[in-house]
Amino acid sequence: MEKRQIILIPGPTAVPSRVLRAMGAPAINHRGPEFRELIVEVTAGLKQVYQTANDVLILTASGTGGMEAAVANFLSPGDKALVVSIGSFGDRFVKICRAFGVEAEILAYEWGQAANPQDVADRLAADTAHKIKAVLVQQNETSTGVLNDIQAIAAARGDHPALLIVDAISGLVAAELLTDAWGLDVVISGSQKAFMIPPGLAMVSVSPRAWEAAEKCTNSRYYFDLKEAKKFLEKGETPFTPAVSVLFGLRESLRMLADEGLAAAQERHALYRDMVRSGVRALDLELLADDAAASPAVTAVKVPAGLTPKDITGPLRERFGIVIAGGQGKLSDKIFRIGHLGYVQPTDILATFAALEMILAERGLPVQSGQAVAAAEEVLAGGI
Amino acid sequence: MEKRQIILIPGPTAVPSRVLRAMGAPAINHRGPEFRELIVEVTAGLKQVYQTANDVLILTASGTGGMEAAVANFLSPGDKALVVSIGSFGDRFVKICRAFGVEAEILAYEWGQAANPQDVADRLAADTAHKIKAVLVQQNETSTGVLNDIQAIAAARGDHPALLIVDAISGLVAAELLTDAWGLDVVISGSQKAFMIPPGLAMVSVSPRAWEAAEKCTNSRYYFDLKEAKKFLEKGETPFTPAVSVLFGLRESLRMLADEGLAAAQERHALYRDMVRSGVRALDLELLADDAAASPAVTAVKVPAGLTPKDITGPLRERFGIVIAGGQGKLSDKIFRIGHLGYVQPTDILATFAALEMILAERGLPVQSGQAVAAAEEVLAGGI
Repeated sequence: MEKRQIILIPGPTAVPSRVLRAMGAPAINHRGPEFRELIVEVTAGLKQVYQTANDVLILTASGTGGMEAAVANFLSPGDKALVVSIGSFGDRFVKICRAFGVEAEILAYEWGQAANPQDVADRLAADTAHKIKAVLVQQNETSTGVLNDIQAIAAARGDHPALLIVDAISGLVAAELLTDAWGLDVVISGSQKAFMIPPGLAMVSVSPRAWEAAEKCTNSRYYFDLKEAKKFLEKGETPFTPAVSVLFGLRESLRMLADEGLAAAQERHALYRDMVRSGVRALDLELLADDAAASPAVTAVKVPAGLTPKDITGPLRERFGIVIAGGQGKLSDKIFRIGHLGYVQPTDILATFAALEMILAERGLPVQSGQAVAAAEEVLAGGI
Repeated sequence: MEKRQIILIPGPTAVPSRVLRAMGAPAINHRGPEFRELIVEVTAGLKQVYQTANDVLILTASGTGGMEAAVANFLSPGDKALVVSIGSFGDRFVKICRAFGVEAEILAYEWGQAANPQDVADRLAADTAHKIKAVLVQQNETSTGVLNDIQAIAAARGDHPALLIVDAISGLVAAELLTDAWGLDVVISGSQKAFMIPPGLAMVSVSPRAWEAAEKCTNSRYYFDLKEAKKFLEKGETPFTPAVSVLFGLRESLRMLADEGLAAAQERHALYRDMVRSGVRALDLELLADDAAASPAVTAVKVPAGLTPKDITGPLRERFGIVIAGGQGKLSDKIFRIGHLGYVQPTDILATFAALEMILAERGLPVQSGQAVAAAEEVLAGGI
């Protein structure tokens, strides 16, 4: 029989059937009134989720396209950027900066750690000549399952005029993010994460200060030109043909999130996080991130001695149809990651721990059937 | 009652229900074995359609992203390109070149005309110093409904080493294109045209000569870096999260096109073209393009004196649910365009002419009920 998979990777996430049905709607003219209604509703919904009155623009691309847009529209060749890197996606910001001639000064942390906002404050305070034009940082680092304190990093700027560019691709909706209250200039998100729809769209919010920087920006951009996107949005269009079916899905998911409420969605993700962390501890496995910086979107777990990530992810997928992720970059051989963002059910997590118990016991680890599931159940019972 | 629309714009096109169902499949891990099978099958199918043994790479973007990739990967700042422009999308190539520091020399033709391959031959023959690094040209110009003779333009290069970069976004499948036999270095296509699936994917083929140029290219690129795309494709992945649901659709549409056969698909588009042109003539309206250069994807029609394009497109949409396109750029007020690529039924075209007869008669034009429909029927009867 066809195996129904449980997808617990840190995006793309499973897609609710209501969203899949919405995506199956017939094609519309992307330069017609039906599309205008669509993009107006979606943009308003995104502003709610972003908690912003800033412009929010939609690009047909994966999240990385949004990251490139954030560099190419607001930073010029020769500019200096302070890139706060706590993992693989921080390194991606560095690569994009360098590909576009921007000098990336890296404030790096050990993988598994969160950034220390005081370090950002110190570095910017030392930059009295205001050479640093922007601070680039992840809200949630997908490769390590670590959540940065964006509110504190934003406050750490003090009077320094650097733009704050936040990759919230895997963090938005899962964790609190207040674009305007915290003063975030550019915030990037992606459709395939907590929005629980398929990949294909990147969203970018732009503050008035960021627009001023864009006016002076000399970097090469055409497809990702955000000023053009704003100009077309004013007439209810996009400069180039958008991924309309994914937009149908986004409209539906934004309605679902509005029904649920943003606070409830964040509590849901916190509950998943706590279930997973509790289950991992009951298996006597080691968590990569401390509780204080634990991601509500994905949890990284150190692979027990003598095993590789594939010894765990392989049987999970082949025997149980449960798809989790291995490590990325320098942690490729050292961790596995359980995604718990977007359209996840508590039963998905319970079933995953049951399967993990069986797999680890077979490999000779001292695991009792039910011990991890019980720990996760306990959190779930307390959380409802 | 909900109005079922007939979509006859030059892309995005209507989507067959078989494709819509395929796109509703549950999410898969884009770094897992299911995805590898998917991209291997789709890439092989694309090579068939492209008639090439070259690499074909898939980007999550609209067609314009593919055009940008063709400039940013193969041309460096300061390079000269010869851009053959016969309409709005030729002008887009010019804008992309300039955004990326490439000097665009424009070989322009009146909108509605095809390019003369001899002009390309003459210009390249005069370039004895080989300053021109690439010739950029549309196979099918969507804004005017004109098909260029790509085979002749390719031959016009003679011994000149310029790369030939072809935007085949709205032309591929609808018209013949032999990537290898004609020696085309870079060919760009898009999902939302004759592939009859929603927008979200751009495809780019790359010849060995183009790869050599990419090695020396100094332009800024990250998201659209084709060398990275090739590297990841070798392990059955994409560098960044791809629009998986659109890829599910592409797999299905490639299967449908393989069943139909490429020659039959081209004959189908030629039949639509001839039905539309015959119907337009029967209405005593003027076609923008000559028969020799008539596009199999879209037909541009001059608006009768005293009317605007909206006088025709508005009632068609509001009263009949038929969506056609107005003009673009400098022809915005002068033409309307009937798209006939992708998932079009002959009945769509017949119904459109019936509606056009009614609308034009009401505006006082000397139109008899049935005259255009009869002309289109006659072509259809001959073509089956």
